[in-house]
Formats: sequence, C-alpha cells, structure tokens
Amino acid sequence: MKAKVHITLKSGVLDPQGRAIGAALAQLGFTGIGEVRQGKVIEIDLEETDRARAREAVEAMCRTLLANPVIETYAIDLS
Amino acid sequence: MKAKVHITLKSGVLDPQGRAIGAALAQLGFTGIGEVRQGKVIEIDLEETDRARAREAVEAMCRTLLANPVIETYAIDLS
Repeated sequence: MKAKVHITLKSGVLDPQGRAIGAALAQLGFTGIGEVRQGKVIEIDLEETDRARAREAVEAMCRTLLANPVIETYAIDLS
Repeated sequence: MKAKVHITLKSGVLDPQGRAIGAALAQLGFTGIGEVRQGKVIEIDLEETDRARAREAVEAMCRTLLANPVIETYAIDLS
C-alpha cells in the first residue's frame, strides 16, 4: 500500500517560502498572482495491506515526525 | 482560480530527504516501511479565470522557476 501525506501550513501562519516564490514570479514578469503557499508531500511505501491499520500507522508517523501540529495540517491519501 | 503544482523527483533520482525520513521513521520504531520520497506542492492564487490560459501561465512558471526539469516532474491541478 502507498500512502501520500500532504502537509501544509495552517492558514494564517506566515509562509516565507511561498512569499519568496511569489516575489520571484513577479520579478520574472508573471502578473495576476495572489497568494503563493508551499507545502510538502511525502510518499511512503507500506507493507501493511489493511487500510485501517495503514491509516493508523501513518497518522502516528505524522504526529511523531512528519508534521508539526502547531503550525501544520496534514491529509493522508492511501492507494 | 487556484493552481496546485505537485513537484516530485523523477523516479531513479536519489532523494536524500526521503531517505532521511525513512531512516528516522525506522529509528522511531515504525516497521514495514519501504521507500519514502518527498515532493513539494505549490499553491498559487491566480486572477486569470480562463482555464487554458491559466494552465499555460502555470506551465511557464514551472519551466522558468518552480521545477527543475532535469530531475523533477510536475503536475498541475486547477480549481
């Protein structure tokens, strides 16, 4: 089973990387650009074949290592 | 219109960040984990309302700034 974890900054949290990308795009001449935000995707190959147990394991990974719950939210996609 | 750009390393390209995450998960006691790979997601608010022109603009952004086409692939989601 494959898990895709999408990690994004909570709305309201300042995203300097996103700001830098937005500024660079404007400098390159791109117009009509509003807010830019950057997040992460982590793809994990899992041996687990049970969906519920896989989700539980990946939730635990997010809480303990992958995401910072103070400023980030995460979403898990299993396939 | 909102564009989501998913940028991932091409398969075969070494992903040290992904490796580090995999090693850290193993050290934390998680088992049954295969390959781990890390990618980026960039969310861009666009004033453009025409889908085709928005996609064209975001493609140009990817080619000129967001992705390194030598080692990365990108996928664009518009909504």
